[in-house]
Amino acid sequence: MYKRYKPELDYSYTLGVFPTVELLKYRPDVVEEIFVHSSAVDTAGVEELASLAAKHQKQLTVRDKQIAALSLKENVHAIAILHKYSMQLSPNSNHVALVQPADLGNLGTIMRTMLGFGLLNLALVSPAADVFNPRALRASMGAAFALNTVYYDSFADYITAFPNQHVYPFMLGGSTELAEWQPKLPCTLVFGNESSGLSAEFKDVGEPVYIAHSDKIDSLNLSIAVGVSLWAISTRGGVTHPQK
Amino acid sequence: MYKRYKPELDYSYTLGVFPTVELLKYRPDVVEEIFVHSSAVDTAGVEELASLAAKHQKQLTVRDKQIAALSLKENVHAIAILHKYSMQLSPNSNHVALVQPADLGNLGTIMRTMLGFGLLNLALVSPAADVFNPRALRASMGAAFALNTVYYDSFADYITAFPNQHVYPFMLGGSTELAEWQPKLPCTLVFGNESSGLSAEFKDVGEPVYIAHSDKIDSLNLSIAVGVSLWAISTRGGVTHPQK
Repeated sequence: MYKRYKPELDYSYTLGVFPTVELLKYRPDVVEEIFVHSSAVDTAGVEELASLAAKHQKQLTVRDKQIAALSLKENVHAIAILHKYSMQLSPNSNHVALVQPADLGNLGTIMRTMLGFGLLNLALVSPAADVFNPRALRASMGAAFALNTVYYDSFADYITAFPNQHVYPFMLGGSTELAEWQPKLPCTLVFGNESSGLSAEFKDVGEPVYIAHSDKIDSLNLSIAVGVSLWAISTRGGVTHPQK
Repeated sequence: MYKRYKPELDYSYTLGVFPTVELLKYRPDVVEEIFVHSSAVDTAGVEELASLAAKHQKQLTVRDKQIAALSLKENVHAIAILHKYSMQLSPNSNHVALVQPADLGNLGTIMRTMLGFGLLNLALVSPAADVFNPRALRASMGAAFALNTVYYDSFADYITAFPNQHVYPFMLGGSTELAEWQPKLPCTLVFGNESSGLSAEFKDVGEPVYIAHSDKIDSLNLSIAVGVSLWAISTRGGVTHPQK
């Protein structure tokens, strides 16, 4: 029996058919085995999963008790056990850097939004939420498996590794409004923690950008700020993506 | 002792100092009484709350057990009990309409984003998440108290009440890409449920709009789609807001 996720384990797992299918599409090499629930064996989702498992020669078994042990209260039809793996960020690409993000749901939503707008490289400055946490994987709808994600001890460590990035910290005291922003590429969009944002010294690491909003709120939700910024860059030639 | 929230109760409550302060700023008329935790009586947040309570002649008492009974596991420093109230949408304003939204966190984030981008009127087509649920109030960071929110049995009922709105359903099969969108005002931005989106017949209720994204994701998260769209309209003269 695999045990409930803890950060120190060398494995993690997907919760649900959808992220499990995405895992098998993007990273079949890290899949250990797949469990499905007996109540779901005839569903279209599990059939797609079985076909992907056969293609990649992965074991798929009905294991209700194992699923119950790993899922929380919710109804989970499939789980894949995966070995954690290390990744590298691509140079000469646009990056997102999150400084000390805490919320697993936000992290997952941001990863899904990055994949949607074609930014595939995510730097995380520690302490930061764990991308391998099953809740983050699920909130990303499996997008986590399509991205490159690397943790750094400090933002300085990140920028030392990628000195050619044009850095745009998003902060309330920014000098450039997002609507007027003309990013130089490759760029890195930097966002702070959910409650505290970026500290003042980030003004000096690049050209600070702000998203104009009413003074009736303190700040936008982190995932909303990232989403708006990524859409803005996707409409300015920063990334290309096939349409529908 | 007030009991844990249920939709059928005629009262609700805020969880935490921040949404309680917002409630006292926007809707002091509906506040019944305020509870603070003994561990927080000397904090700046509770002092601001005490000053607002005095201004509006509301009772503020230290009641640790009452707070424990209403909060979940988390640390809550203040709670205000409020009577539920009914609201009206403003005509000749831009509206957001959410068709059967299910997630309380999404609903709260959307309300906060609406306030941030100056859209103050929210139509909800039932069955829909409950704006008075304390979790939605908290996710909105108190923005719920600054908005007008009305439930409708159907979208047809809403549009009968506001026949002069220019309606823009956001859907994958839309004819206008968001980057090219030139909204006519007053407008209503319509979004579907988190998992199913808007059904095909919404194409006929107005000019359908889509947000271009990679085919590597099925759809954007609902709150991200709303956030991007509201930012887009805020940059096209659809709304005005004082800056910082």
